[in-house]
Amino acid sequence: MITLQQAADFLQSRNNFTILTHQYPDGDTLGSGFALCKMLQQTGKNARVLINGALQDKFLYLADGVKEQSFNEETVVSVDVADCSLLGELSSYKDKVDMAIDHHLLHKNFTDKVYVDSTAAATAEIIYRLGVLLNVSFNKDIADCIFTGLTTDTGCFRYTNTTAQTHIIAAKMIEFGCMAAEINKAMFEMVSKRRIAIECMVMQSIRYYADGKCAVIYTTQNMLKQCQITDDELEGLASLPRQIVGVKVGVTVREKSDGVFKISVRTNDGVDASRICSAFGGGGHAAAAGCSVKGTLEETINKVVEVIEKELAQSI
Amino acid sequence: MITLQQAADFLQSRNNFTILTHQYPDGDTLGSGFALCKMLQQTGKNARVLINGALQDKFLYLADGVKEQSFNEETVVSVDVADCSLLGELSSYKDKVDMAIDHHLLHKNFTDKVYVDSTAAATAEIIYRLGVLLNVSFNKDIADCIFTGLTTDTGCFRYTNTTAQTHIIAAKMIEFGCMAAEINKAMFEMVSKRRIAIECMVMQSIRYYADGKCAVIYTTQNMLKQCQITDDELEGLASLPRQIVGVKVGVTVREKSDGVFKISVRTNDGVDASRICSAFGGGGHAAAAGCSVKGTLEETINKVVEVIEKELAQSI
Repeated sequence: MITLQQAADFLQSRNNFTILTHQYPDGDTLGSGFALCKMLQQTGKNARVLINGALQDKFLYLADGVKEQSFNEETVVSVDVADCSLLGELSSYKDKVDMAIDHHLLHKNFTDKVYVDSTAAATAEIIYRLGVLLNVSFNKDIADCIFTGLTTDTGCFRYTNTTAQTHIIAAKMIEFGCMAAEINKAMFEMVSKRRIAIECMVMQSIRYYADGKCAVIYTTQNMLKQCQITDDELEGLASLPRQIVGVKVGVTVREKSDGVFKISVRTNDGVDASRICSAFGGGGHAAAAGCSVKGTLEETINKVVEVIEKELAQSI
Repeated sequence: MITLQQAADFLQSRNNFTILTHQYPDGDTLGSGFALCKMLQQTGKNARVLINGALQDKFLYLADGVKEQSFNEETVVSVDVADCSLLGELSSYKDKVDMAIDHHLLHKNFTDKVYVDSTAAATAEIIYRLGVLLNVSFNKDIADCIFTGLTTDTGCFRYTNTTAQTHIIAAKMIEFGCMAAEINKAMFEMVSKRRIAIECMVMQSIRYYADGKCAVIYTTQNMLKQCQITDDELEGLASLPRQIVGVKVGVTVREKSDGVFKISVRTNDGVDASRICSAFGGGGHAAAAGCSVKGTLEETINKVVEVIEKELAQSI
């Protein structure tokens, strides 16, 4: 581990930066990457961001204000990448990362220079603090990137990781002119017609068990086909069943293309999701865990519900 | 209009307070009312909050830390009440309000001492600033109330009314120990089984017009009966159709118990919702307006869609 000042000093001492984001890039890795790129360019350096996979249209504005520069790469920095296995398409960089900046508690060191602050709600919080040390003059383009990281990794300031610091930095970004409401609208409000259709189908399929304490939703390959939706458009679906009043265990069962069922378990009130999933060789956190189960849909739901009913009986 | 300092001076000079909230009490009127009550009690005064109508269970914690005091009422303060017509059950207080504290731009003065700050995202922001002038020692119970006002009136810091100040005060409330994540969860995540059922039914009924630029959803008395849900549990439903990618005009048609249809229009991209509703004798804001229409469901939808198609043709 290096200090934040050492991280800033390293950036200042080097030039010609390639900034790596993680696969299935989200608002924090992209917001952090583009903010860092703009900050480095502002201080007279050459820098570029490598987007790791397809960039969703809603993130296009993050590149506003980035200058296209041609240079020979000298320094590689990863942002919000918790493990080199998440480098995906950029895995050729696995042994070439000079510095990693991240906020994941379970960051797996894959380079010498590592700065991790797991109290930061988003890597973008760390990028902001780096910018202060680098004497960056924050503008709208940088502020939009940092705000995007903050709001996406906190579910719009809703999750438990949100701290006073998160709000304070958000306030500063608004003062620097970021288009906060527009970003929040694009990130949290807009849904596709296909997504509406699948959610409708999923909500019709909802099943309650254990006197309503357990709710199960599922998607099958056939349902996805009917709604013309792909698996990666189902992001966030797993949080639905736990939001129902009275539900302690929310389960999402997704049939993958190979016929295996992927199970996501989300819990309230201290029921242990990771213990439920460990019964099927999976794992995770107390309130959010996952596993995979083979069988028919009905067999799979029955197996999982059986374990949950036992867990609920014990936890009451 | 008085100044904030004058408002604080007035509170300090008086005692035995009754604090009035508005009808259909929401998180801001209740959070502001209970925060002010606790602040006054802390400074040695007698105070009570009058809840205007039924208190939803999710707001019960706002009263934590309030002392029950018996006293003869001397001073009446309203919080977040934009117009005395909103005093509902408390309309007997119409001419007895000594001071009104509010953040509504269209506040209609109904007393001599009025403090309105329409740049405040929530009345709770003003109550916080009053607390600072009153040298209040902020604690968790007060912070929970103020945070509740902030987060509910901004849709969890999402709406355009959210400012840097809103985030700065939220940060302070978190530092004072407020249970931010739990409040946000209770306010924004939890949904009833009945609500899930009606949303599912509503989403099945969705109709697209004007090449998908207009989306219409509806509820009928029969649908409400099937889902065992009451009209006041439909809060927020009207925001659904506008959230669909490509939709410029989202329409919600609700059959009321007397057979009249209440129409809510929400727009994106500068389409004028109030002009659409004014065609039916209604009105509102540019992005959110409403009106009432008589007829059958089909007739009503056809009439409204016809006006919208014209409006869309003009605005393109």
